[in-house]
Amino acid sequence: MKLHWRHEVCQADIAGIRQLTAGTGVFSAEEIQVAGELVESRLQHGESSGYYFLLATSDDRIIAYTCYGNIPFTDRRYDLYWIAVDRDFQKHGLGRDVLKRTEQLIQAAGGLRVYAETSGRAQYASTHQFYERNGYQKIAELDDFYKSGDSKIIYCKFL
Amino acid sequence: MKLHWRHEVCQADIAGIRQLTAGTGVFSAEEIQVAGELVESRLQHGESSGYYFLLATSDDRIIAYTCYGNIPFTDRRYDLYWIAVDRDFQKHGLGRDVLKRTEQLIQAAGGLRVYAETSGRAQYASTHQFYERNGYQKIAELDDFYKSGDSKIIYCKFL
Repeated sequence: MKLHWRHEVCQADIAGIRQLTAGTGVFSAEEIQVAGELVESRLQHGESSGYYFLLATSDDRIIAYTCYGNIPFTDRRYDLYWIAVDRDFQKHGLGRDVLKRTEQLIQAAGGLRVYAETSGRAQYASTHQFYERNGYQKIAELDDFYKSGDSKIIYCKFL
Repeated sequence: MKLHWRHEVCQADIAGIRQLTAGTGVFSAEEIQVAGELVESRLQHGESSGYYFLLATSDDRIIAYTCYGNIPFTDRRYDLYWIAVDRDFQKHGLGRDVLKRTEQLIQAAGGLRVYAETSGRAQYASTHQFYERNGYQKIAELDDFYKSGDSKIIYCKFL
């Protein structure tokens, strides 16, 4: 499969990213909505939005992407706001690839650390394993953060 | 001193809040800039901005304020994004008053918890004491989060 990688987003990516995130089955309706809004924010405000993107497409369909950015008020700390891989293309190392390329972009921009947050629920076990396999350390867990019984885990990787 | 309390923000509050936050001496230039931008965001997007305000004014001068909102993707968890009291009016319980009124507004909106984040640096000791005195618990500390030697402390209060 021939992948095309790009950083610039366009109007069509709002729907494309919503389609991708919805297709994974792991994001809520609110999360899918917001994932699209971050593209809108980038299109409207450019770099000052604070949102950067990396997209992998095949035949103009987005099959993996990340959204990341410098965490306000920090010295070269970055947040991995979103990462998603199309369900039809998972289990082939594409998640690791898009993450690694994102970390390289962050490092090239001077970034020292990447933070990623996710739910502590059992259904996210494969997400936890994904981060841990890729060098992320769990640095905090906030109990009942999203809702009762649903904690937030904060991961960090030193670049 | 006669205080006037309000929730609606107007164009003049962008400068007013920047003046207030700058005057405290504890916020960086970037933080003062962003404090104003949140008012702009509220004026532009209304409630969908996610930013709510409580302002205490005296003779049309803002002397204390909070900016707060529902944390996206959470069930009735709120973030206290900003709290500031004019330096000339500190040490008279106004911080506690604006915080208590904000918590009441959050509770009236159905909020169950309030989260607040601050630097762990020694110069913020009075901020830490302020939160602890007002029923906030330190639930996590992320080392070197803002920069090397500058941690982020996360506080939480159950309403």
